[in-house]
Amino acid sequence: MATDEQGPSEDSANGGFGETMLHAVIMAGGSGTRFWPQSRRSRPKQFLKLAGDRTMIQQTMARCAPAIPPERTWVVTNQAHSAETTRQLPELPPENMLLEPCGRNTAPCIGLAAIHLLERDRDATMLVMPADHVIEPDEVFRQAVMQAVELVEEDSQRLVLFGVPPTYPSTGFGYIERGDSLDGRSGAYRVRTFREKPDRDTALNYLKAGTFYWNCGIFVWKAQRILDALAEFEPGIHERLCRLQGCLGQSQWAESLRAEFPEMKSISIDYAVLERASNVCVVEAPFRWDDVGSWQALSRLLGTDEEGNTIAGLHCGVDTKGCIIRSGDGHLIGTLGIEDCIIVHTPDATLVARKDDENAIRQLVRLLEEKGYDQFL
Amino acid sequence: MATDEQGPSEDSANGGFGETMLHAVIMAGGSGTRFWPQSRRSRPKQFLKLAGDRTMIQQTMARCAPAIPPERTWVVTNQAHSAETTRQLPELPPENMLLEPCGRNTAPCIGLAAIHLLERDRDATMLVMPADHVIEPDEVFRQAVMQAVELVEEDSQRLVLFGVPPTYPSTGFGYIERGDSLDGRSGAYRVRTFREKPDRDTALNYLKAGTFYWNCGIFVWKAQRILDALAEFEPGIHERLCRLQGCLGQSQWAESLRAEFPEMKSISIDYAVLERASNVCVVEAPFRWDDVGSWQALSRLLGTDEEGNTIAGLHCGVDTKGCIIRSGDGHLIGTLGIEDCIIVHTPDATLVARKDDENAIRQLVRLLEEKGYDQFL
Repeated sequence: MATDEQGPSEDSANGGFGETMLHAVIMAGGSGTRFWPQSRRSRPKQFLKLAGDRTMIQQTMARCAPAIPPERTWVVTNQAHSAETTRQLPELPPENMLLEPCGRNTAPCIGLAAIHLLERDRDATMLVMPADHVIEPDEVFRQAVMQAVELVEEDSQRLVLFGVPPTYPSTGFGYIERGDSLDGRSGAYRVRTFREKPDRDTALNYLKAGTFYWNCGIFVWKAQRILDALAEFEPGIHERLCRLQGCLGQSQWAESLRAEFPEMKSISIDYAVLERASNVCVVEAPFRWDDVGSWQALSRLLGTDEEGNTIAGLHCGVDTKGCIIRSGDGHLIGTLGIEDCIIVHTPDATLVARKDDENAIRQLVRLLEEKGYDQFL
Repeated sequence: MATDEQGPSEDSANGGFGETMLHAVIMAGGSGTRFWPQSRRSRPKQFLKLAGDRTMIQQTMARCAPAIPPERTWVVTNQAHSAETTRQLPELPPENMLLEPCGRNTAPCIGLAAIHLLERDRDATMLVMPADHVIEPDEVFRQAVMQAVELVEEDSQRLVLFGVPPTYPSTGFGYIERGDSLDGRSGAYRVRTFREKPDRDTALNYLKAGTFYWNCGIFVWKAQRILDALAEFEPGIHERLCRLQGCLGQSQWAESLRAEFPEMKSISIDYAVLERASNVCVVEAPFRWDDVGSWQALSRLLGTDEEGNTIAGLHCGVDTKGCIIRSGDGHLIGTLGIEDCIIVHTPDATLVARKDDENAIRQLVRLLEEKGYDQFL
């Protein structure tokens, strides 16, 4: 698996992140039903074109590409989505696609990536990010990553997160409370505490305080540092990672992965490490971020017309307000006297849902399972 | 155009209507937008399978077929719909499809049919009916037609209508008030008056009175009698019909039709003749009748489930009540928190409408025209 990439790496590094060997780790193991009927088991959110001409995972890789070459870009996904990942990211070297035998949340996922990076590059720095968030503009994101990389270069023990300044009192995100600024740097702070998803009043207080950020799940750290932190706080996971590390590039790799990975504790990197470690820093995100958590995100991403509608595709409406309407392939949606609904047409299935009830999509998907409508899942 | 059909006619007549040469005249010139997106300019309601495996026009012809053979079945339609009519009614003799150059309402339509029938059969009796109503059971309909035919045989001056006992205070139909019963026959009456579409209170009174019927637009009379009545009440129409009669089967027919027909007054047979003539009788319809005037008719025709939904096609719903949902070709409709809506999916267009707003479908169709979405019209 080792390739001689000194040449291209340095070229790219010079363009983006100084002397640092920065690797991009794209977490793309998600399934999720919130975008049914567009998302399916075989086509989760990261593979959809929800905002723009490219899919979320394509946008994620392209966002890093000017600074991080394909040889240092990694995608962690699973067998079920490997073919689609290859199809959507033809430039990704096959050996840089890591397949989890099963989902164990982000701590084992990041650990798995870390041991691969270290095999290539003992001083690797990791930029870890989900495959299915919207971030704009790309250049501002790369500048922010540069800042985070500098913090890590300055002190290799630092664990850096990006914090998104809240724009509304969301009860759906975890929050990070910032502490002192780092050596007077603007926009970089020690983390004081992590806060669980708050209730409405608490979220309002966070918003007013001005010292809280949304935890957007994008991280920068040394690969060795995160492994050391796992050794400290989750030795069970670390032990199995070490065993895997011993098999890298060997014939028993696949078998070992199948044996060790499912036995790892399923835990997020936040719980496993960040909430316990010292030297955790937050960089205030200067970019626009959206986790595209549900169809309603389309209104934020695409805007609304004077009737409050967000339309993607052919639509003709009379007395239609506050709707999110999406269609493709020239299929027309006609609406009459419809308010605050989500209408999504795909070739084999159409969703009509009240906006308020959107979280019940998983209920609908469960019902499809019960009815045996597997072809629509 | 004349064919020797004495043999088969009599055979069939014996099966159905005694010695009478009964002809079925199916009026199929309708366009209409109330069933968009399923109905289109090129595929109006009579060509749709709204209730059952056959289209409305197929059901209409099949309903008469045991008693009236194809040679005595006539369809009045227009050039735009002739190919689809031929496709759907392969047994209809080509010369029995009459093409109106333009729509002039039912009086000229029926007059045009009458002159053709008389050319074949000087004593022809006509059963006139729209192509796009639901009538059940077929056999009861044929028995009722038999009764009407008997009334006409008894007195060739009679103009017989079917009257449907109202089941709710409809403000959408014209009403017929019955007078004395005909010679003590059960279910057959002289017509006292015709009543325009009433307001709600009046409709309630009609319903309570028990002596009012919905005018369902199904008639039985001698072809010569209706021509004579047109001569009396609408001499302008009659004069042009006579000129056309003179060209039947001749080379100048098409040209004459194009010249005369559009110049005829556009008027319904009800206004032109029935509301003015004496000897108009009503037979109480013993059959179930529905004009399938809008998508809401589907609930009457197909029934509703325990949630008040009428579903035709694949559907999976959570918190879905009082909806009419229609889809085909295995396309799935998923609904969430939706009440009292009409959802109709077709391959290239989907309608989502509030039930209350259904009459605005024409508004939607007009908007499609304005937007230049001709492919959906």
